[in-house]
Order: sequence, then C-alpha cells, then structure tokens
Amino acid sequence: MTDSFRIESDTFGEIKVPANKLWGAQTQRSLENFEIGGIGERMPLDLIKAFAYLKKAAALVNVEFGLDKAVSNAIAQAADEIIAGKLDDNFPLVTYQTGSGTQSHMNVNEVLSNRAIEILGGERGSKTPVHPNDHVNMSQSSNDSFPTAMHIAAVVQVNTKLLPALRLLRDALDAKAKEFDSIIKIGRTHLQDATPLTLGQEFSGYVQQLTYGIQRVEGSLERVHYLAQGGTAVGTGLNTRKGFDVKIADKVSELTGYPFKTAVNKFEALACNDALVESHGALNTVAVSLMKIANDIRYLGSGPRCGYGELELKPTEPGSSIMPGKVNPTQCEAMTMVCTQVMGNNTTITIAGSNGQFELNVFKPVIIRNYLQSVQILSDVCKSFTKNCVVDIKANKEKINQLMKESLMLVTALNGHIGYDKSAKCAKKAHAEGTTLRHASLELGYLTPEQFDEWVDPSKMLGPS
Amino acid sequence: MTDSFRIESDTFGEIKVPANKLWGAQTQRSLENFEIGGIGERMPLDLIKAFAYLKKAAALVNVEFGLDKAVSNAIAQAADEIIAGKLDDNFPLVTYQTGSGTQSHMNVNEVLSNRAIEILGGERGSKTPVHPNDHVNMSQSSNDSFPTAMHIAAVVQVNTKLLPALRLLRDALDAKAKEFDSIIKIGRTHLQDATPLTLGQEFSGYVQQLTYGIQRVEGSLERVHYLAQGGTAVGTGLNTRKGFDVKIADKVSELTGYPFKTAVNKFEALACNDALVESHGALNTVAVSLMKIANDIRYLGSGPRCGYGELELKPTEPGSSIMPGKVNPTQCEAMTMVCTQVMGNNTTITIAGSNGQFELNVFKPVIIRNYLQSVQILSDVCKSFTKNCVVDIKANKEKINQLMKESLMLVTALNGHIGYDKSAKCAKKAHAEGTTLRHASLELGYLTPEQFDEWVDPSKMLGPS
Amino acid sequence: MTDSFRIESDTFGEIKVPANKLWGAQTQRSLENFEIGGIGERMPLDLIKAFAYLKKAAALVNVEFGLDKAVSNAIAQAADEIIAGKLDDNFPLVTYQTGSGTQSHMNVNEVLSNRAIEILGGERGSKTPVHPNDHVNMSQSSNDSFPTAMHIAAVVQVNTKLLPALRLLRDALDAKAKEFDSIIKIGRTHLQDATPLTLGQEFSGYVQQLTYGIQRVEGSLERVHYLAQGGTAVGTGLNTRKGFDVKIADKVSELTGYPFKTAVNKFEALACNDALVESHGALNTVAVSLMKIANDIRYLGSGPRCGYGELELKPTEPGSSIMPGKVNPTQCEAMTMVCTQVMGNNTTITIAGSNGQFELNVFKPVIIRNYLQSVQILSDVCKSFTKNCVVDIKANKEKINQLMKESLMLVTALNGHIGYDKSAKCAKKAHAEGTTLRHASLELGYLTPEQFDEWVDPSKMLGPS
Amino acid sequence: MTDSFRIESDTFGEIKVPANKLWGAQTQRSLENFEIGGIGERMPLDLIKAFAYLKKAAALVNVEFGLDKAVSNAIAQAADEIIAGKLDDNFPLVTYQTGSGTQSHMNVNEVLSNRAIEILGGERGSKTPVHPNDHVNMSQSSNDSFPTAMHIAAVVQVNTKLLPALRLLRDALDAKAKEFDSIIKIGRTHLQDATPLTLGQEFSGYVQQLTYGIQRVEGSLERVHYLAQGGTAVGTGLNTRKGFDVKIADKVSELTGYPFKTAVNKFEALACNDALVESHGALNTVAVSLMKIANDIRYLGSGPRCGYGELELKPTEPGSSIMPGKVNPTQCEAMTMVCTQVMGNNTTITIAGSNGQFELNVFKPVIIRNYLQSVQILSDVCKSFTKNCVVDIKANKEKINQLMKESLMLVTALNGHIGYDKSAKCAKKAHAEGTTLRHASLELGYLTPEQFDEWVDPSKMLGPS
Repeated sequence: MTDSFRIESDTFGEIKVPANKLWGAQTQRSLENFEIGGIGERMPLDLIKAFAYLKKAAALVNVEFGLDKAVSNAIAQAADEIIAGKLDDNFPLVTYQTGSGTQSHMNVNEVLSNRAIEILGGERGSKTPVHPNDHVNMSQSSNDSFPTAMHIAAVVQVNTKLLPALRLLRDALDAKAKEFDSIIKIGRTHLQDATPLTLGQEFSGYVQQLTYGIQRVEGSLERVHYLAQGGTAVGTGLNTRKGFDVKIADKVSELTGYPFKTAVNKFEALACNDALVESHGALNTVAVSLMKIANDIRYLGSGPRCGYGELELKPTEPGSSIMPGKVNPTQCEAMTMVCTQVMGNNTTITIAGSNGQFELNVFKPVIIRNYLQSVQILSDVCKSFTKNCVVDIKANKEKINQLMKESLMLVTALNGHIGYDKSAKCAKKAHAEGTTLRHASLELGYLTPEQFDEWVDPSKMLGPS
Repeated sequence: MTDSFRIESDTFGEIKVPANKLWGAQTQRSLENFEIGGIGERMPLDLIKAFAYLKKAAALVNVEFGLDKAVSNAIAQAADEIIAGKLDDNFPLVTYQTGSGTQSHMNVNEVLSNRAIEILGGERGSKTPVHPNDHVNMSQSSNDSFPTAMHIAAVVQVNTKLLPALRLLRDALDAKAKEFDSIIKIGRTHLQDATPLTLGQEFSGYVQQLTYGIQRVEGSLERVHYLAQGGTAVGTGLNTRKGFDVKIADKVSELTGYPFKTAVNKFEALACNDALVESHGALNTVAVSLMKIANDIRYLGSGPRCGYGELELKPTEPGSSIMPGKVNPTQCEAMTMVCTQVMGNNTTITIAGSNGQFELNVFKPVIIRNYLQSVQILSDVCKSFTKNCVVDIKANKEKINQLMKESLMLVTALNGHIGYDKSAKCAKKAHAEGTTLRHASLELGYLTPEQFDEWVDPSKMLGPS
Repeated sequence: MTDSFRIESDTFGEIKVPANKLWGAQTQRSLENFEIGGIGERMPLDLIKAFAYLKKAAALVNVEFGLDKAVSNAIAQAADEIIAGKLDDNFPLVTYQTGSGTQSHMNVNEVLSNRAIEILGGERGSKTPVHPNDHVNMSQSSNDSFPTAMHIAAVVQVNTKLLPALRLLRDALDAKAKEFDSIIKIGRTHLQDATPLTLGQEFSGYVQQLTYGIQRVEGSLERVHYLAQGGTAVGTGLNTRKGFDVKIADKVSELTGYPFKTAVNKFEALACNDALVESHGALNTVAVSLMKIANDIRYLGSGPRCGYGELELKPTEPGSSIMPGKVNPTQCEAMTMVCTQVMGNNTTITIAGSNGQFELNVFKPVIIRNYLQSVQILSDVCKSFTKNCVVDIKANKEKINQLMKESLMLVTALNGHIGYDKSAKCAKKAHAEGTTLRHASLELGYLTPEQFDEWVDPSKMLGPS
Repeated sequence: MTDSFRIESDTFGEIKVPANKLWGAQTQRSLENFEIGGIGERMPLDLIKAFAYLKKAAALVNVEFGLDKAVSNAIAQAADEIIAGKLDDNFPLVTYQTGSGTQSHMNVNEVLSNRAIEILGGERGSKTPVHPNDHVNMSQSSNDSFPTAMHIAAVVQVNTKLLPALRLLRDALDAKAKEFDSIIKIGRTHLQDATPLTLGQEFSGYVQQLTYGIQRVEGSLERVHYLAQGGTAVGTGLNTRKGFDVKIADKVSELTGYPFKTAVNKFEALACNDALVESHGALNTVAVSLMKIANDIRYLGSGPRCGYGELELKPTEPGSSIMPGKVNPTQCEAMTMVCTQVMGNNTTITIAGSNGQFELNVFKPVIIRNYLQSVQILSDVCKSFTKNCVVDIKANKEKINQLMKESLMLVTALNGHIGYDKSAKCAKKAHAEGTTLRHASLELGYLTPEQFDEWVDPSKMLGPS
C-alpha cells in the first residue's frame, strides 16, 4: 500500500501523490482543493495537447537562452507523448480551479518534468535534472502561457475538427441541392403555402448558410492567431528576453502548421479573452444556421401520413416496432440539442469574458472549456448528421408533386392571362369547394384545359423573367 | 426666449431648466450628461408611478416624525397627479444613468417639490416651502428608495397587467379545449404520427402550462413584496427613526392594496436585486410556455393546402390579396417575437443582477427597465393573441378526421385482436401501397369490415383502460 | 476475439455487443449512430439512477397488473444495483441522441433485463425470462418515462446535494457574520466610501441571499414533484390501466422519500418541460447571488498591500513562491466560473424548453444534462468554497479600522452638532490636505478633541435612532 | 369630428384613418391589431429611413422597367423627406407585429404613396396616380424588401454612429495611455499585487481592445452588405426582371455610399438572418470589452480614501452634498448597464435567428430592433463616456506611487542579486512586521541602501531584458 504513493513537494510543503502518476505536488493539491464535478468537468485534453505544443516550442527556443540541450530534447520528447495521447491519464484537474488556469498549467509542467526526468534516467519527483519551473516553465508564467495554450487549442481544434466537419456537411447538402434541382415544390412563408421553388433551391439556401458559416469561423480565427506568450505575469514581459515572444510564436507555427503571431499588445492578451468571445460568436452563428436547417429537414420529413412528408429520412434505429415509415428524426434532434448547448455556451463565454479585472481575466478555464466543447460537439454532430441523415435524404416526389398541384398559390400564374379578379375567383371557388385550381377555373369557364396546363406551369415560376 | 428657461440649482451650482417643466437641477444635469438613446430608452413611467406611491406614503408617514402637515398634503396631492398620469412629460431621463437610479429618484423629488410648491402657492424652483431633499426625500436615500420603487412597480404591474392577461388567455384556451373536447385527432411526437388524442386534450396541455404560469408568476412575487425602504445609504438605516421602515411598508400596502412588508435584511435589499432576478425567471418560464403554444398553433394552422391544416385561424389583415385561405399567423408571430425578447431580457437581468458590489448593486435601472418591459409586452401580447387569434380558432374537422383516418398509427389497436405480427403486416402493406389501414387489413383477410370498424376505434384510445 | 462479443437484436435486426456489457441492441446502435462528444458528454449517471428508482417502482406496481412476481423481484434487485452504482459502466450513451431520450431509456431497460435474467439464472441477451420491453417497460413509454426520470433525478439531486451544500455555506457565512458582529468598517456604494456598517452586517446580507436562495430552490421543486408517468406515448395513457399513474407516483415517493404526485395533466407533462425551466431559474438566481458574494470576498481580500485588504483569505496552494501574503482567491474564482456556467446553462434550458412540438418536447436530454450539471457543480463549489475559504476568513481589523478612520464619510455625524456648512468645510479641508477629519476639524476650531471623539462615533451610525 | 378621419381601404375593406396622417389601411389595421407596448416599442426610425433609401432606389430603377418617370420622381422626393426626418410621425407601428415586417413595409409604401400623390397634386388615400403596391412596391415583396432594409439600416447606422463613437473612445483612451506613459504602478492579477507596469501600459490594453473592437465590427459587416432584394416572395425572384436585383444593390450603394451587393443566394437571404446574428456577435464582443474597461476604471477610481484611488474621475453631478471627493462613477455605470443590455440583445437575436422556417424567418422585426438598439446605445454611451469621463481622467500619482512603494512584489527584483531565499526572507519580514521591503531588507543586512535603490528599480521591470 505504501508503495502506491510517493512524496512530491512544492513551496507549500510535501504531499502524497499516486506513485503511478506523473503529476506533482501542485496538481495533487488542486485535486484535493477543487472537488467540483466529476470526470465530465475535467479540463479538456485538447487544451492539454495545445500546452504540449507550447512547452515543446519553449523547450526548443530556450536552448538559445541557455537551456541545456539534453533537457530541451527530453521535454520535447515528453511533450510529443502528450500530443500522441500517451499520457492522458495524468491530467485529472477540473475546470473549476484557479481562474488563471495555473493549476492545469503546473499539471503540464509537472508531468513534463517527471516524464523528461525518466527519459533522462532520473527519478520521478526528484525535479532533477528537469525542474518543472526552472526548466519546463523557463521564461513563462501561467498568465501568458495559459491564454497562449487556449489560442493554440482553439486554432488547432477548429481547423482539424470543425472546419472539415462543416465542409463535409456543406458538400453533402450541396450534392442534395443538385440532386433535387428539378423537383418543383410549394414554397412556404409564414408556414403558409406560397409560390413554388425547387427542392434544390431550398437546399441551396442551406448550402449558402454553411458556406458563410465556414467563412465566419475561418474569419473569427484572425485574432486568435495572436499569442500572449512573452507577456509573463502582467503583460510587460518581465523575466523574458527580447525576442522570446516572437520566437515562440514562430516555433508554435512551425510545430502546428498554423500562422500564429505574437500578440501586438500583451496587456490586452492577458487581461481579456475577447478573441475567443469573438470567435465563439461565429460558432454561435453556425449553431443558429444549423438549428434552422435541422428544423426544416425534420418538418419536411414529418409524417409518414399526417405531416409535410416531402422528404424521406432513413431510419437508423427502431422508431416504432409496429409502425412502418415512422422514422424519428433523431439526427435532427441531436443536432438541435447541440445547437442549444452552443447558444448557452455563448452566454457563459460572454459573461466570463466580460469579468476580467485589471491585468488578468480569471475566467480562462471556463472560457476555453465551453469553447472547446462547442467545437467538439458541433464537429461531431455535423459528421453524424451528414453520415446518418443527409446523405440518405430522399425526396418524396409524389407527395411533393401532389401538394404543389393541390396548392392554390399557383393562381398567381393566371393573373397575366385572365386578370386579377377572375384569378381570385378561381382560387376562392377552389378553396370553398375543396377542389383544385384547375377544376375550379375550368368549371368557371375562364379558360380551356390546354390553356390552364400551359399557363399554370410551376417551372416558369422559378426565377426572374 | 429668456422666458422659456428658469434657473434651478443644486450643490453643483445653477443650471437652466425649461420653464414649462417641473424638474430641477439634478434632472437637467442628467439629461445633459446621459444622452444615451432616445425616447424609447426612457425610465419607464410605471416605475415613476411606483415612486409616487412611495413618496406619498413617506409624506404621510413623516408627519409622525415632524413633517409639516400642509407640506405632507401637498406632496401627497402632487404624487396623486403623477399616479393619474397628469405629469408624464416631466420624466425625461433615460435608463442608462447612474446605476443607483439616483437621478430618476431626484427627478421625482424635484417634480414633487415644484408641484407641491405650486399647490401651496409658492414659486417653482424656490424649494420653499417644499424642499426636494429635506421634505420630499425626508429619511430616504436613493439606495433604499429606488429598489423600493422597483418592487412596488413590479408588484403593481404584474398584478394589474400580466396576471389578468395570462388569465384571459388561459380561459380562452380552456374554452377552446372544451369546445374541441370530442374532436379526435392524430397525435404527433418527434413530429411523427403517433396515437390519437382529442384536440381538446391537446389544448388542455396549453391550459395547464398557463395555469402553472400564473402560479409561477404569483409565487415569484413572494420576495418582491419586501421593501428596502428604511435601509438608507448602506442598509443600516442611519438617519431614519426606529419603525420608519415598517410604517412605510404598511402605508404603501394601504395605498396600493398589495401585501408589502419591510425587508428582513436591508443590506441584502440594497446590495442585490435577487428578488427581481428570481421573479423574471418566472416571466422567462412563461415566455417558454407561450413560445411552445404559439408555435403549435401556427403549425396546426399551416396551409391552407400544403400544411397541417387542422386549425383555421381567422385573418385579421390581408395576407395575400389573391390567395383565399392564406392566413399568415401574425398574432403567433408577434407572440413568439415577444418571447424571444423576454428571454433576452432574462440574460440582461441575470448579468446585471450578478454584478452588485459591496453595499449596492448599481445596475438597478437596467434591471427594472427590462423587467417592466417583459411585463408590458407579455401582457399586451397575451391580450392581443387572445382577442385577435385564440377566440376565433376553428377546428377543421374534415381535415383532422381525414388525417387521422389515413394514419397508420391506429394499427396499435389491432394488436390485442390479431396479434402483433399480423398487425405489423397490415401497416406495412398500407404504407407500401399508399392505402389505408382498413383497406390493407381487409385485403389481407385478417378481419372483417365490421371487426375493423369495431376494433379500430380511436375513441377507445384516449385514456387508460 | 470472437468471444468478446455477443449478438443482440431488436426490430432492426442483429448487432454485435461487447460481451462484458449488459446493454443490448438499441444501446449499441445509439453508440454507433451518435458519436458526439466523448465521455464528458454522457447522459448523467444521476439520471440513470433516477430511472432505476422508476423501473423498480414500475416492477413492483406491475405485479398488481399481472407481472410475474419473480420477474418483478429480479428487476427490482437489478435496479438496486444501478442505484448502488454497481453497474455504472453499462451506460455509455451521450446526451446528443434522440430528443425523447428513448435510447438511454432503452439502455436502462436492456441493462435491467439482462441483469435480471442473470439473477434468475438465464442467459444474457436471451430476453428470457425478462424482456426489456414486455416486462421492464411494461405499461411505459419513453415519452412518459424519460420526463419522469428527469423529475426524479432533479428532486433527488437537489435535495441530497444542492440544498445541503447551500445550507452549509449559509451557516458558515452566518457564523462569520456573528464573529464579525462588532467590527465596524466603512461602507461602499458605487465603490465609493459611504457611511459605516459592521462587517457582520455586511456578511448578514450574504446570509440573507442564501437563505432566500434555499427557499427559492425548495419552492422551485413544487411543480417538479409532478410525474408524467402514465401518460405513455402522447399523454392519453393508452395501454395503461386506470390508477397506474397514481400508484407509480406513490411507489416512487415511497422508494425515494420525496413527495411525488402524478401529473395533473399528462399532455403538459410530455409536451413541455416547463417545471425544469422554472426550477433552473431558481438555480440561476442562486448563481447570481453567489457571484456577488464571491466577488465581494475576493475584492475585500485583495492585496496584500495594494488592495482593499479588509479580509484575509487562507492560502490553499502556492500563489507566489516568493511573495508572502499573496493569496490568490482561487476558491472565489472557481465559484464565479461555476456561476457563469450555470447562467449559460439557463440559456440552453430556456431555448431547449421553448422548442417543444405538439405532443412532445424533444430536447429532454440536453435539458436534464444542463440541469443536473448546474446542481452538481453548484453543490460541489459551495462545499469547496465553504471548506477551503469561508470557514478560514479572517478580518484584518487593523486595516478595517485604519480605513474607517481615514474615511471622510464620518463627517455626516457632525451635521447635527456644528451644522451642515461647517461639517462640509471640515471634510473639504481634510480632503484637500490629505489629513483626517479629526485633524481638519480641530484645526478649524469648530469643536474640541473630546467633542469630536464623542460625536464622531461610528458605533452610533449603525442603525436607526 | 368627422373631418378628423378619412377612409382608406385595402383588400380587407374600408377603415378609418386619422386625416392628418399619411398612412393607409394596412398600417391602421396593424395599429389596431397589435397594441403591444407603447411608443418605446415602435419599429425604429432608422429602419424606416433605410426603407426610404430602398424605395427611392426601386423607384429610380423601375423607370427602366416601365415605371412612369413623374411617379418615380415623386416617390423619390417623398423618400427624401422620410430620410430627412420630416415624416417621422407617420410610422406608429410596433415591433411585435407580423414577423416578416410586412406591416411596417406597407406603412412605408402607404406613406410614400400618399405623399407622392400629394406632390403630384392628387388626393390622399386615392391611390392615384401613385399606388402603394403597384408603383411604390413594384417588383418587390415584403419578404425581400424587409431584410434588405434591415441590412441597409445596419450598415448605415454602424458606419455613421457606432464606428465613429468607438474611434472617439479609442482615441481618447490612447491619449490617456500616452499621457500616463511614465507613471509606474503596481500590477494586479487575481486582484492581488503583482509586478509593476505603467499606467500607460494598462491603458494601452484598453486601446487594443477597442482597436480590435473596431476591426470586429467592420469585419462583421462583410456579409451584411449583401441584399435580399430581388428574391421576392420565396427567393426565386418571381415577378422581377432579370438584373433587377443587381441594379437595386448598385443604386442603394450609390445613394448611401456603402458597398452593397446583391445576395449570392436569395433563398438564404430570406430564410435566415444569419448575417445580423453574426454581426451582433461583434457588438456583443465590444460590449464584453467595454464592460471590462469601465469596471477597471471605476475600481481604479474607487475611494476617495478607502478604495484603490489610483485614478481621479471628474464629477459631473452631485455625488454627495457633504462629501468632497465622493465621485460616483456614473458614466461607468451607464456604460456597464448598456453592456448588459447588449448581451441580452444577443440572446434575443440568437434565439430569433435560429427560428426561421422554410422559406422565411419571421422574427425579422425583433432582430432588427435589438440590433439597432445595441448600435444606438453603444454609440451614445461611448460618446458620453468619452466626453464626460475619459478625457478628464487624472492619475493620482501620489497614491499610485505610495501603493507601489508599499508593495512587496518588487522583491522579485532582488532575486538576481541576493538569491531567492534571502529575497523571500525580506518579503516575509516586511509582511509580518507591516514595514516596507526596503526597511526589512536593510534591517536584515542583506544589502546597502544604495544597492536597494539601484536594484529595486520598478522602471527596469517594465519589459523584457
């Protein structure tokens, strides 16, 4: 039993740490002092990995400023292991901790230190030859490192998860828009029957929303590319060497492949998190778009008999064991639930972002947690929605055609031929008697069947003349 | 020209005030220093009237503590004029002013002072014989008066506007629930056809939502009945006499007819506005309910040909000049827009409420403005929606019946008679061939027409057995 | 390798399930169709345990309606194992699934079925002698069961976690209020020096906020006690027997010890989740209160030299290794971050709650997830904040006294003795020369030292006279 | 009495309209059917003026498509009168009306028609020679005109009001940053004393926030420049002529001076309002920034004796009649209240934006109202805050210097000279004894007074080395 712990220490003194874990005293202390929420509330691993990129960059850059090369290499190697997901079990801290994220930052420093020590043949917990503060954290402070890791995480995750997922969904909808290009259907405004359009045109609106959504998200990263690193404790850069900030940004860019730059003003970069508030505003807008699209699709697929029924969704699980055709639009439901979560996250991030004080905003962990959650669940649901719903959407041409033919809105096509008053009479008669426009107008004798079929041609109502 | 101004003064010095207005120097200064938004951003008159109740109560109570009886009567008379709406033009200040609401509070004191002076034959602006601070504001501070007026306004407006409007709508929906009691229709879950219920049952759900909504709003006033008055500047009650707080609460209760009490803890009553945050949470819940109800009604009324079409909404304005039966559900649209406004107001009030500092929350004006706006527009839209939409809703029995008959969900009624497997076959056949359940099951020979009609009886599917 | 799977089936067909798991086909299908978020996005176990109470209750009640007693007992025993946390690994589904929660509901049914089968000596996956639908789910539908489990989870978690945690914090603050009862300090309104109060009075405001908060949360459960069970698919109760709904509510009350009742109107109980929207409004209000309290405490503890410095917070982890007295208010930071999360959750729940459609709201999983997260993190942070911060708060009497003595606001005490004008002169002189009020007023010769000390007595400024 | 009305008509029939107003039947009907909120809830005049630009553009373009030149000119002239604010009294409709904004659109058409008729010598209400539909609304539909007017209003108001106001504030803060460039002060992180920076550096962070804010708002207009006009009822452009959409966008650009373009996809442009959701996300971010800045300034200006006291704010109205130096930070309070309003508006716009259905989003009025309110109050408060607060901010150098000298954080400067351990001892001794770092370290004999003064030099701690 006693074997299962080792002693680690920090300026507060000694503390027992599980022997099989790489973290140190400060992590352990945070674990005990912030028992807030379970595993689901942990600081996201995507942030930890972003930290690993940063710490590797710092280790490499710091060689120029006196860091021992072997130590640098060991830190870099340990960082690569974090990036590869090999050390995931060593980051147990929750979001609701110190507002600067210092404890998760120290968690990273401690794990890197202990792992690098092992790589160099030393003893876990000895802080020799790789000290978590002196070496891993050389020239860094939580106050500049944590927001730097936040920005790295945001840029990496958006680029590797969200943008591909949005493009996947956009392209799938675009394929459908093309597939449905010649299917003419009734339009609906105010939920009321309106003039016709093609189902492809309807879907093209969704495609446009997503094309813009992708632009929005991409554009929102502009200011997220700026890194706080080099500002140290309050933004002045005390204890760093000139040029350190630029070199770090360059090295992170090199390691990740994204165009990071050092922040123009480090005071702003520590004291607020406006760039992530702004960027999440784009995620919020995407959620708004997706909510609309998913709602449309589930309503258009409602039925099988007593709904709009224009689309057929493929069942992916039992809806009703006895009822054929009852396909619950579960992918739409997952999508719309994700959207509400993202909208709520936007409120959280807004409030948290507005509460910075003097030289530091101390809501950083909750901001990045909500940001990364939005990225993750938006990405995942876009993929799931595409794969399990969109690609299999079929148009129920018969129903679409039947509704369009029954619609009275096509009467607008008669205006130019028999005049407004007679047209209105046709529509009124059809409405009152529950018949079709064709039936009513022929019965009124205003035109011949041939004329009706020629004039009332939905395919001529799809664009400007 | 020079006649059109008079000189008023405060501790800051002299300032020109429009001669035809009753306000004084502090109001004028605020007007000039806070040019933020136009007439639409003004402090709500409902708050001003609540202040008038409070000031009248204070004038009457203060006679016990040495206020001259004639002065007291003049203030009370002037307050009555404010309550009666005769002095509305004299409250020009906007919401975005000092966060304690001091300036609107002084606006009230100044107007009452000047009007009381006139009543007593004195000269406007002379502060004699009725001084805005010494007499109108005797034993009061903005820090306790403003939150007191907020609570009075909330209680009065909720009771006189919102609760009657909610009851009106609830009763109108209840009348419809009873009217529609025997109309059996298809149910819809996940937007998919489900087992039947009556249209009356469906509406009874709306009624229940509103019954609970009324209870929620009523219940939310419990802690709003507590008044901060008597806490003066920081909650200690310095400069008041013992018992002043209780007497004021009693007098306000007597004047308004609502059960106000003095706050148990005056520090809480100044430093936060939790009671209004809580109460607006009830308004937010009501908005959530109304959003659902209005959405249902507009979807059920969608058509005339290509929607659900189960309800017929009465047109109240031209929807389409040529298209009979195209009734845009504009009252539903007004309702749902109001709901989104109230939900946004909830965010504003939440953030504003959370930002109190030490002995005072200085977001009071924006809190009460949003609260009262929610009350006003919810009340108005409930009345409008009732009068212009709900009372005229008609069931399209033919459509309802047709959909229900076409539905395949009634197959569940066959389970007990011909077994699950055969029932499923009936439904599958009907679905595949686009026929009715009756047609398919007869063709399969599982039962006779008489049996079908006896067994598949939606009226037996409306409750537990 | 082939040993590690078994075959389960549903109406969709066969599917491989991990051999060591108790779940069945529908769970497995959901796992594969909704890969949205990782472990942190799972449906909360507290909901699963609430389901176990419900399923046990149903098993016991259904004996009256024909369920085999041995089967009933086995289900009940399996449910107890879930409640005891023995089967936690068997509930892998995420929040973002079908909006009725059917898949998590089936997850529970499948696990109970397989576990009960094992208890009775049968073979996992055989559905004999305990079928997930026919027996575990007898007379139940997801549409009534899921909202029932939501309400049970809410009531149980609020009562067992949140209310005790709020009381703990309230009592700790109350103890401090009493401890600080005789420490007179400067008040602050608009962040500006104001008249004095005791530190105990200041804390009494926090206590009152929490006392009300507890009342708010308790009161908000009123309508959460109503259970949807018995409404089945659309609210009519089709396929249940009369009285089933009441018996279930009674049995759940008996098992949990909370006063559940059957819902007055089952249509409302399925189609909306207003009761949880309302109740989360109370949680939101509590977050608003806690934000204010935690902000006050960290500002009052700011320093050690250059802040308000009236409170001394105990360090619980290294703040600065070299800087004694630098105690980062990390517990306050965790608290305020939690508050922003809860406020965001309120937006999510509001939007999700407003989007119900016809007979069902299909945002149930996201609503309960956010609700339970708020309960969990509010509870945990209140305990952490109490234990790691509040109980150790010390008043820095020296600093408090020094600030109060330096303050010029005490000048108000001189008004009654030397008149307003002379008093103002004293304050102006002290302000201009940077001296104390005592020094300035003595120098002006308006009073003797003895008079000053008698008249300017903060202890006489703490209440009405 | 009968003189005071005239009769107007629409397809619904005749209706009485006030004789002195220019509006027609549909406006009057809306007035009567939507009594929701008072004057404060009216559709913003800025939107009406945007409509006037659009209608003028349409009148001019439509000459190419057959509109009589005299009629065109009269409409254009009437539109100019609206733009000039001469007809403001003729737009009485409230926000909460039809969700397409049709009624306000018709209000504009009716007023332009009647005014153009008068210009041409005709009779008000005669619809001759200028018909509100046939001429003013030629080739237009509410469904494309209203979102077009929304975008025009947004672009015009942001450019003419918000951006200049943000620049004004940014420049004022920048001037202060420069003025304060050499004032060294203590930094604060976690509200705790930290390493020093200059007051100018601190303000430079605010400047950067606003510089980015301006970029954010500018960037957010990119997609707002796209106009829906030409999509008519459902996005197809039925009843328009090819090229009409492009010509309209060009003409609006010409009239307003902003780079509008026709929307790439008209279906998207009608069915959603994502561009405004996105753009308001930028306004929300600006509110987040301003909240932080205003909070910092009021805390730094807190006092006069018992707060941070580093800044001196100029009083603009009486704070306390007797207390010199008590300057309530009322401009900061107005600012922060505006910020909470904008954040709430963001929730409203998010929800409203997500609720589009099929070919039309019917929350348009509430979206544009909230958007324009945010623009207006943000603009106004930035101007007010600049003029009445920022330009007069003074640094209290004495207090700043005193706090910095008392701070123990400067101990970090000794590390490199006497080592970490001795440095820590100095700080601990000073903290324990309440003395300065200088006093403690000299007493400990670790260094000479000269060395202390040379080494502990805050001016060397302001940047990287």
